[in-house]
Amino acid sequence: MKLSEVGEFGLIDRLGALLGEPPEGETWIGDDAAVLRAPGGTILFTADLLVEGVHFDLAWTSPQDLGYKAVAVNCSDVAAMGGTPRRALVSLGVRQGIELAFLEDLYAGMRECSDAFGMAVVGGDVSRCDQLVVSVALLGNPAGRRVIERRGARPGDAICVTGTLGGAAAGLRLLKAGQPVPPALRAAHLRPVPRVREVEVLRRFLPNAMIDVSDGFAADLGHICDASGVGATVDAGRLPLIDAAGLPAGLDPLELALGGGEDYELCFTIVAERAEKAASEVEARTGTRVHLVGEVTEEAAGRVLVVDGVAQPLPGAGWDHLRP
Amino acid sequence: MKLSEVGEFGLIDRLGALLGEPPEGETWIGDDAAVLRAPGGTILFTADLLVEGVHFDLAWTSPQDLGYKAVAVNCSDVAAMGGTPRRALVSLGVRQGIELAFLEDLYAGMRECSDAFGMAVVGGDVSRCDQLVVSVALLGNPAGRRVIERRGARPGDAICVTGTLGGAAAGLRLLKAGQPVPPALRAAHLRPVPRVREVEVLRRFLPNAMIDVSDGFAADLGHICDASGVGATVDAGRLPLIDAAGLPAGLDPLELALGGGEDYELCFTIVAERAEKAASEVEARTGTRVHLVGEVTEEAAGRVLVVDGVAQPLPGAGWDHLRP
Repeated sequence: MKLSEVGEFGLIDRLGALLGEPPEGETWIGDDAAVLRAPGGTILFTADLLVEGVHFDLAWTSPQDLGYKAVAVNCSDVAAMGGTPRRALVSLGVRQGIELAFLEDLYAGMRECSDAFGMAVVGGDVSRCDQLVVSVALLGNPAGRRVIERRGARPGDAICVTGTLGGAAAGLRLLKAGQPVPPALRAAHLRPVPRVREVEVLRRFLPNAMIDVSDGFAADLGHICDASGVGATVDAGRLPLIDAAGLPAGLDPLELALGGGEDYELCFTIVAERAEKAASEVEARTGTRVHLVGEVTEEAAGRVLVVDGVAQPLPGAGWDHLRP
Repeated sequence: MKLSEVGEFGLIDRLGALLGEPPEGETWIGDDAAVLRAPGGTILFTADLLVEGVHFDLAWTSPQDLGYKAVAVNCSDVAAMGGTPRRALVSLGVRQGIELAFLEDLYAGMRECSDAFGMAVVGGDVSRCDQLVVSVALLGNPAGRRVIERRGARPGDAICVTGTLGGAAAGLRLLKAGQPVPPALRAAHLRPVPRVREVEVLRRFLPNAMIDVSDGFAADLGHICDASGVGATVDAGRLPLIDAAGLPAGLDPLELALGGGEDYELCFTIVAERAEKAASEVEARTGTRVHLVGEVTEEAAGRVLVVDGVAQPLPGAGWDHLRP
């Protein structure tokens, strides 16, 4: 069967079934990072492969930006489990035309992100390749043994999201179109900030479920719903959208937020009574706003978006790296 | 500067200098795996990137073989630190023409190696790519806090090597030439056996330094010498070579052993008085022979190969993945 027929998520399901059964206390696939038990506690382990022409375009991505983002997106996966990133290995596939100065700048970008979030790239591998490939594997620690998985959402939980949604997708589309890009949208695409500090505050409030917004808010909230067996009602008016002013026609902030992806904000669910307090603490300590955007419902209630008081199905299939 | 001018090892040195300083008790680069401290003990962390056309050719490599080898070479790195492989993530770059059945077979090969050595692949990432790329990151545990590094060799140590040298390179050259390949040489190239079980026995005898033979015996012993600040004298007559009978003209077993690479045997140094006992215990418990092939000397004595009683410089520069 062709991979385009199976799709990225179908493929992950098919291959995941071949891995075997994790022992008690470990979770291997289906979340932002694998959860492993080691003699001294729990380890979070995640990997991301970035491929030139698929995940990045050097026409508008500097090597520093690429290095920064490669580390940042992996830090985001560990943060989304409630953890702190610690050590990474980076394997590089290097094509013709990539010279030493490029790789030194790439490393400078990796170092910049690593230093900002208290972790370190400790080595890796390098090979010739026809395309530039950056493969990162990252270890992290949760606080104690508690990890925040996708599967913990309960009906009645508040649905919350950090920061702003849709900026990365808007920035990418403007860059692709060769149009002027407001600095905030450029940064959202090229320099996403992993919400590591926010999680350090947030995890004390015991969120029930969490994911980072990499596939688009609708798809990622959908992953929480799938894993938790719940539904969700989202109030479109509460979603933290980018400003429509200055966006070219055809770019709709709500669509970008729901389906755009790569925001690397955190979407989490939390017992409703603790939501306001958690949001205000995160903002007070990190400066990052947390928005209460909806409510977890029973599964049978489905996934609903309320726009101007009118309920509709939550749209947004998300991004599939195997479908062109 | 062009990467071909710097070379693989030069590049690793240049980039390694940009990583920062490891904290006390950690070793980041310069060995088979990074040594990290975690709350409950020491972690070994290693990564290898396999690229189609550079590291493997699907003309003679089945997807099962590729999956097996991708896991095996990483297990070998952990074994070479005196450790036990535990958990891996595998990121795949998948080109046009690779279908689901291929990836399922690749996973079956990964599983076969994982099951054989008590570890598990627990997930990873997948992306489109122009070339097939298999990127593995592996975690392992040493026995207690003791790891066996390259830098511990001391003058007077015996130099030992497991198994047979040169078989993988001979197998590869015959496959490339389209010539008949004896099964043992084909297996040496396509299905290298990581010496995980041998290390479980060997580490009780406290080797001073160890490396796996991936670049060729001469180059890998050279890495031990570089890291330890020692010299080495190797007796060519004691090296465990492949049988010259059946090899085509132009393939010399000694050259293949010294410079061929990818044998994934262990080369270690050990206090001379314990060498025979360690060798016989490993053989008794695993069936794998261990050969005493030389002696560690003072650095000033250089790197010497004794052939039929005549000393000469130890040849063999090893394999550089960045030089065509």
